[in-house]
Amino acid sequence: MVDIATRPLPERAEPTASPLTQSVVIEGVWPEIDAGRFAIKRTVGEQVVVEADIFTYGHEQVAADLIWWHVDGQRNAVPMTPLGNDRWRAAFTVERVGEHRYTILAWRDRFGTWAADLVKRVAAGQDIRVDLEIGARLVDEAAERATGRDAKLLAAAAKTLRTGRAAAIDKAASPHLAELMRRWTDHTTSSRYARDLPLWVDRERARFSAWYELFPRSYAAIPGEHGTFADLERHLDYVAEMGFDVLYLPPIHPIGVTNRKGKNNATTAEPGDPGSPWAIGSAAGGHKAIHPQLGTLEDFRRLLASAKARGLEIALDLAFQCSPDHPYVKEHPEWFRWRPDGVVQYAENPPKKYEDIYPFEFELPEPHRSALWRELLSVVEFWCEQGVRIFRVDNPHTKPFRFWEWLIAEIRRSYPETIFLSEAFTRPKVMYHLAKLGFTQSYTYFAWRTSRWELTDYVTELTQGPVREFFRPNFWPNTPDILTDQLQHGGRPAFMARLILAATLSSNYGIYGPAFELGEHVAVAPGKEEYLHSEKYEIKRWDLDQPGSLKPLIARVNAIRREQPALHYNSIRFHSSDNDQFLIYSKRDPMGQNVILVVVNLDPVYTQAGWTRLTMPDLGLGWDDAFVVHDLLTDARYHWRGPHNYVELNPHHLPAHLFRVERAG
Amino acid sequence: MVDIATRPLPERAEPTASPLTQSVVIEGVWPEIDAGRFAIKRTVGEQVVVEADIFTYGHEQVAADLIWWHVDGQRNAVPMTPLGNDRWRAAFTVERVGEHRYTILAWRDRFGTWAADLVKRVAAGQDIRVDLEIGARLVDEAAERATGRDAKLLAAAAKTLRTGRAAAIDKAASPHLAELMRRWTDHTTSSRYARDLPLWVDRERARFSAWYELFPRSYAAIPGEHGTFADLERHLDYVAEMGFDVLYLPPIHPIGVTNRKGKNNATTAEPGDPGSPWAIGSAAGGHKAIHPQLGTLEDFRRLLASAKARGLEIALDLAFQCSPDHPYVKEHPEWFRWRPDGVVQYAENPPKKYEDIYPFEFELPEPHRSALWRELLSVVEFWCEQGVRIFRVDNPHTKPFRFWEWLIAEIRRSYPETIFLSEAFTRPKVMYHLAKLGFTQSYTYFAWRTSRWELTDYVTELTQGPVREFFRPNFWPNTPDILTDQLQHGGRPAFMARLILAATLSSNYGIYGPAFELGEHVAVAPGKEEYLHSEKYEIKRWDLDQPGSLKPLIARVNAIRREQPALHYNSIRFHSSDNDQFLIYSKRDPMGQNVILVVVNLDPVYTQAGWTRLTMPDLGLGWDDAFVVHDLLTDARYHWRGPHNYVELNPHHLPAHLFRVERAG
Repeated sequence: MVDIATRPLPERAEPTASPLTQSVVIEGVWPEIDAGRFAIKRTVGEQVVVEADIFTYGHEQVAADLIWWHVDGQRNAVPMTPLGNDRWRAAFTVERVGEHRYTILAWRDRFGTWAADLVKRVAAGQDIRVDLEIGARLVDEAAERATGRDAKLLAAAAKTLRTGRAAAIDKAASPHLAELMRRWTDHTTSSRYARDLPLWVDRERARFSAWYELFPRSYAAIPGEHGTFADLERHLDYVAEMGFDVLYLPPIHPIGVTNRKGKNNATTAEPGDPGSPWAIGSAAGGHKAIHPQLGTLEDFRRLLASAKARGLEIALDLAFQCSPDHPYVKEHPEWFRWRPDGVVQYAENPPKKYEDIYPFEFELPEPHRSALWRELLSVVEFWCEQGVRIFRVDNPHTKPFRFWEWLIAEIRRSYPETIFLSEAFTRPKVMYHLAKLGFTQSYTYFAWRTSRWELTDYVTELTQGPVREFFRPNFWPNTPDILTDQLQHGGRPAFMARLILAATLSSNYGIYGPAFELGEHVAVAPGKEEYLHSEKYEIKRWDLDQPGSLKPLIARVNAIRREQPALHYNSIRFHSSDNDQFLIYSKRDPMGQNVILVVVNLDPVYTQAGWTRLTMPDLGLGWDDAFVVHDLLTDARYHWRGPHNYVELNPHHLPAHLFRVERAG
Repeated sequence: MVDIATRPLPERAEPTASPLTQSVVIEGVWPEIDAGRFAIKRTVGEQVVVEADIFTYGHEQVAADLIWWHVDGQRNAVPMTPLGNDRWRAAFTVERVGEHRYTILAWRDRFGTWAADLVKRVAAGQDIRVDLEIGARLVDEAAERATGRDAKLLAAAAKTLRTGRAAAIDKAASPHLAELMRRWTDHTTSSRYARDLPLWVDRERARFSAWYELFPRSYAAIPGEHGTFADLERHLDYVAEMGFDVLYLPPIHPIGVTNRKGKNNATTAEPGDPGSPWAIGSAAGGHKAIHPQLGTLEDFRRLLASAKARGLEIALDLAFQCSPDHPYVKEHPEWFRWRPDGVVQYAENPPKKYEDIYPFEFELPEPHRSALWRELLSVVEFWCEQGVRIFRVDNPHTKPFRFWEWLIAEIRRSYPETIFLSEAFTRPKVMYHLAKLGFTQSYTYFAWRTSRWELTDYVTELTQGPVREFFRPNFWPNTPDILTDQLQHGGRPAFMARLILAATLSSNYGIYGPAFELGEHVAVAPGKEEYLHSEKYEIKRWDLDQPGSLKPLIARVNAIRREQPALHYNSIRFHSSDNDQFLIYSKRDPMGQNVILVVVNLDPVYTQAGWTRLTMPDLGLGWDDAFVVHDLLTDARYHWRGPHNYVELNPHHLPAHLFRVERAG
């Protein structure tokens, strides 16, 4: 839909009427999340389409404006248009990062009603002299409200209405007069929707991003050493060559030694074991410090700059928990829960105990609660001050919801462009609620959705259900914690298919590398999803040049993502096939110019063949149109026609077509 | 669903926590109409089932109470139970007419979490001494909050927890201790749902009623005379014999003479034409007066009493409009809109003009608006004072929505048992909105829904969609304004089928008689739905004893309605058939004891035969059960088994089976 001309709203147009005299009903507004308690989300350049039921009593016509504004900007009004059955719609495009509001103003359109009635009276051959006078008086009233040229035009129109039949009737039906009358509507008795609805606008990367996660300590120039930020700087080209735009680092802070975990999550560490980066805090400092073996704050700032020069933005990890050696434990014992036996309550999932981790006690009596919350806020502020604008938040669902809502809002007051990725692998309503609270993006269940119906159902829920208004999925085929059964046993075909699915089903995606591109697939034990020799507990040495690396495919896929606007959005439609191993879907950019069609063979073992059943209008085509599908992965072109076309995919070669749909000839 | 035991909520249980520290999320509450702006509706004895998404962060279990109260009564709490996926439910039964509220209280259940964790620790063979001490301290805290015997029991329980392994573990898992701990929960940090949601409870007749409309002036003892209330008293037995419980009278006020309509809506009345009762007001008075030819206020009060003695409640018509002769026009010219030529703006639907009707101008500048509204309120109060408690409201959708919301609320403050039937035949959202504003029942599109899919779709929307929470349909096959095409041409079979459909599809229904039972079917002109010689404009003389009268069938249907509780509710389920002319549906009472199954042949011409496709569980039966269907219209019994059973209905004989489902043998 194209925007209807947006115009600034005159200051004086605010309705002053009490609810008792508001005569137009405005209800069923969409989007609206939990009665306006939470904001919908957009990115700069995106459109907001708003619909509502709008009606009044009696015979009178109604008119309505969608009103929207940046909280620091002027109000804009977009005329709403009726869709039938008392449903109305309007749209606008957001241009600024930050907090916006929108609401609806509606009124009984006496002039419009009068004009429409006059046409009927004329058609019935009635004497309309008195009716013309009634209309002229309405125009006179508007002329009194109007200023400048408009006032003169309205006064002249009233005169014309009083002159007599032909010119008067033309004037009554004039769109120009209707527009003038609308502009000078008396809004003192207009109805305003009960709520100003919130809208949060992010920068574009909130919607379109490709993430790469790595452990900096694994990139030392000398084998066996602890890698540094300087080593990582030398490795940045490798990541940039693959076309990623976010480089996410696990916690970079000092790692505790008490109860440090050893290789493969052993409860006792061997000498030399580096420990888990998520066991934050030691004598060297806490959440604002840098692990000494990685380098200095100066080194980190240089890393940020080097990454930026390569189009890479560094994302840090916010893991609000402590190792027993964290300075907070001694300095602020009141921030932890103490057991009756005098030890700090360690993390638990009974009967499992995680004695290397002390969770904060977030719901403390004041003033301790405020002190703790402000300290944690200052941690985020500290890294923002260094230039970090993306945070991956570890297990947010284990901290109070209100804490996140408060913290994110506070950060956005100074740094509205900040992106927060929620790492909450938990129940769906909790994940959606975190998104409502302000998280920009979220991990999802994608890793465990493998069959055609699972992927179709889940992606449809995320991209076409109400959650699309506030929940932005980020699809990860693997993470340091998640090596799925499919990747363990599906071989190279599974890695290729999961990469292409993640990168094209969702406009935000990421991988944990080089485990992913090198096809790491051995789990610590049967039935487990943990990597054997997990990088969480040891320094790895990756053979990045090994011949089977998926680096070239990843680079190609990321290049295609950048070039094809359809892949920057989640306007996805699923298509059918006679072969259930084929997942077929298409995406279009908002202008509908760029159409991508993806066919994935979900079977990692066998070549699959079958026929597409395309919903042609979703491709912008007629049901019997001929068209060309251009595979952007292989540069092959196929001439297709209509819904039914033959596809054959050998997963060992390449398990997917990533087509751009082109006009034939 | 059976209520979980309801218990009064202790005064002290109100949460005092600020939203910032509320740690349990309560959202997705249903029922909730427009963010609590409008009330859901029930009748005395009905159940309210409330569901919500309730969850918290982290590992802690949650517990929740549904809180409900009459605005003049004490608060009650019902424990909510989890349904899975963070959805919770509870129910309560309302016992008083009037305004209620309900909301939800939820909290992190530290004791419940502790008890569940303890079981896991024991199963894992862990040392639980410290954990038992942690639990004992929780119980100590509750003991301090508790009073009387509970305090002692809790103190003893804490002691037991500290004693050691076996008895302590039993005590930790004791449901009795869990209940004590729940009772003495510290609610100071509990979360309370953002809104207290409104619930309006009506008396039973709001849900279950059978209406009969007649024109009192047509029942004079002497042919040609104007009937009186005294005449109508003599006619009451006729109506009561048919089993109706509401007798609705068109306006009983003085009728204007200026521009009075003649027979068949002629623009000029002949001498002796009585005029339309909806042209209210003459020199004899206005909305608080009685048309002199009908009798006196005394006569009216006697009529009310006579009707009451026969189980009949009189419903009056509220038609807020004036004839040009209404005293208001002279006394309050400011309550009308004046045209530039110095005449009052008559009612219009351009190009049609209704010059015998002057609408009020409801949205006046103060103090006129308040004066007009209060005067109209006093009209309703006046008739309430006479004992009237049911009003059929003429064209409410042509008056301001806020007027009705205000008027109905005002009346209910003194007369909460008052029933308002909305006569708004307009667009669906407007009709539903009037119901939200407070109208008890509403006319519907039933008269024009004739095919199987139309009836199925419409009744499903009304009885299973969200509108069921606030919109109570009243099904009328005819009214003085509506003689449908089907009744014009369908003959006696159509009248029988439409009666049975109205009376069994909807727990509220009505007919305009004796036009209905005598099969009046001639329209004023082809393609029109107005009766020829409409009773609206002339005094009729009905031959009530004519042999074809449907009076016996109506009496039988109304008797069945009274006897079968399933027909007092709209818990309807549709069943299928291989013959599209059969509409098949069943109803169950809330206890599920009484099951009614209706099969209607919608074809008014031909005998139809076919096979049912019953959804057996909707009848409370297994898929292969044998059962008896007992036709309450004919007293015939059929032995059926499973979903597929043969039916044959000759519409000229009787176009429907009205079965009670009975167990075989």
